[in-house]
Amino acid sequence: MDEHIALMQRALDAARMGPEADPNPRVGCVVTDAAGRLVAVGHHRGAGTPHAEVDALSRAGDAARGGTAYVTLEPCDHTGRTSPCTEALLAAGVSRVVYAVTDPDPRAAGGATRLAGAGVAVEGGLLAAEAEELNASWLHARRAARPWVVAKTASTLDGRVAAADGSSRWVTGEVARADVHALRARCGAVVVGTGTALADDPRLTVRGADGAAAPRQPLRVVVGLRPVPEGSHLLDGSAKTLALATHDPAVVLADLHARGVHRVLLEGGPTILAAFLAAGLVDELVAYVAPVLLGAGPSTVADLGVRSISDAVRLRPTDVTVLGPDVRITARPLQRS
Amino acid sequence: MDEHIALMQRALDAARMGPEADPNPRVGCVVTDAAGRLVAVGHHRGAGTPHAEVDALSRAGDAARGGTAYVTLEPCDHTGRTSPCTEALLAAGVSRVVYAVTDPDPRAAGGATRLAGAGVAVEGGLLAAEAEELNASWLHARRAARPWVVAKTASTLDGRVAAADGSSRWVTGEVARADVHALRARCGAVVVGTGTALADDPRLTVRGADGAAAPRQPLRVVVGLRPVPEGSHLLDGSAKTLALATHDPAVVLADLHARGVHRVLLEGGPTILAAFLAAGLVDELVAYVAPVLLGAGPSTVADLGVRSISDAVRLRPTDVTVLGPDVRITARPLQRS
Repeated sequence: MDEHIALMQRALDAARMGPEADPNPRVGCVVTDAAGRLVAVGHHRGAGTPHAEVDALSRAGDAARGGTAYVTLEPCDHTGRTSPCTEALLAAGVSRVVYAVTDPDPRAAGGATRLAGAGVAVEGGLLAAEAEELNASWLHARRAARPWVVAKTASTLDGRVAAADGSSRWVTGEVARADVHALRARCGAVVVGTGTALADDPRLTVRGADGAAAPRQPLRVVVGLRPVPEGSHLLDGSAKTLALATHDPAVVLADLHARGVHRVLLEGGPTILAAFLAAGLVDELVAYVAPVLLGAGPSTVADLGVRSISDAVRLRPTDVTVLGPDVRITARPLQRS
Repeated sequence: MDEHIALMQRALDAARMGPEADPNPRVGCVVTDAAGRLVAVGHHRGAGTPHAEVDALSRAGDAARGGTAYVTLEPCDHTGRTSPCTEALLAAGVSRVVYAVTDPDPRAAGGATRLAGAGVAVEGGLLAAEAEELNASWLHARRAARPWVVAKTASTLDGRVAAADGSSRWVTGEVARADVHALRARCGAVVVGTGTALADDPRLTVRGADGAAAPRQPLRVVVGLRPVPEGSHLLDGSAKTLALATHDPAVVLADLHARGVHRVLLEGGPTILAAFLAAGLVDELVAYVAPVLLGAGPSTVADLGVRSISDAVRLRPTDVTVLGPDVRITARPLQRS
């Protein structure tokens, strides 16, 4: 059993090399021969490339016959851009398949049943919690039929996101700003309201410490009825930009879900954050708090319709990290009674 | 030398048993005999009681003759409620005095000179940094001729101190609220504006987890022109309350300094905090940040006259501590150019 765990752990490590922001889940696969010796490790590199099972089996060749495949997600039984992994596993002649977490996607699921019906020994659930965490937002999107929404705020100790004249460069320090780029890199789309697009002319791209753009960029999404002016950074072609002429968070998420986005970073401003919060469509808040006081200027979040402290939006912190002079508080909204 | 350090450390430990909020500094004293053996440890217990040197010498008796006194603060040469410590040391016949930090109080200073003039070997500066930290606010008050001001805020992630209807019970959780009582216990006075006094009817006393009042309470101070209504908790007699009919922070601090208060806790609200900040009279900020969003309600700090981000009040964090669901950020305002 310990060996099983070690091999699945290896598959999870391989899965982590995949791109988190991709529409597809991050999956890893380890293949052993009939004697249980590891012969190949594979992982998925993003939509349009081979699935982890196919990647590993192609490396294993004949050595896989009679062996075991350890996969971090139930193998698919579905023909998309690639043929089903169940077919590949059967063709390779593996005698056993061990997977971590069940695929909740109705189109892709049923792989375990298919394999068992073909005489393969199938076990599910090994290191399921780790595998669940690995693809938390992808699994959430499959189950809830909408992306996981991370709202990011960067404000002063008195809750201002900018000074009275609108200037906001910089509220937070360099370390926190680099952290925001890492946060963006994990998301399929970055969303702002037209107010922020007009006031701040943000780039919303993922850039390194040297300012160089990352090879993979999230979709930039501007929500609202006002047009983004020509010459804006959002229209500079450095990444795709989508304008959605709506104020309804559910409409925004449905559109992004249809595009395969499973993790959305909501970057502001206060009005769109309030709309998502009021609709119960924020799953996680990443709040950067800077040791700064302004005394005036726009607030972190616009009116939520909360009149009394008993109706406040309360969150459960999951992490507090010091980033240079700033503090990052990660928290999840509590269900409201 | 190592033995010197150990004995001064012992004196510092004794000093810590004194009451920090007392008008007098916390002082400890260790006395050895002529052979260098520790014979007595003493400390000061607050205004009106013997100084640390006298406390230790009275325990040492004749054993002090020819010995050494280790004192955390330069012995006083001044007759106040008690006679000068220099006299007591000379009368006891000690041959050497080692002290940590020089007394900046012009009335009390000169002890080292007096002792040296009487033929006693005198050394200063041993563990000076620790001794300085021990009485940081008292030393600050002596040098700056005003108390050290700690401003406390308790706000939501969006910088609100209360909901739109004024309700604020509770923004922060139990652990943070207990921490506020510990913070009050370290201060000689707790200051609020009349706005807070009228809106919240606070007690401002130091209470334990069981609600019982601590034996020593800070002076409660209400600043502003409106009277505190009869029946308010501030007039319940559970601690002394002082009303100061002014809006000038410098006047408030001069009054408290004259009363021997060297550490003030400014507990709000937003208007008085803004007045102290604008006057450059906040030395330390203790900000409790709760994982709560309100979207409306009074802000942490009122208008500071800051229009642009470049004029923001910036602070240097010295500590970040998680207290239950809340985060406590301690920071000191940077000098503004």
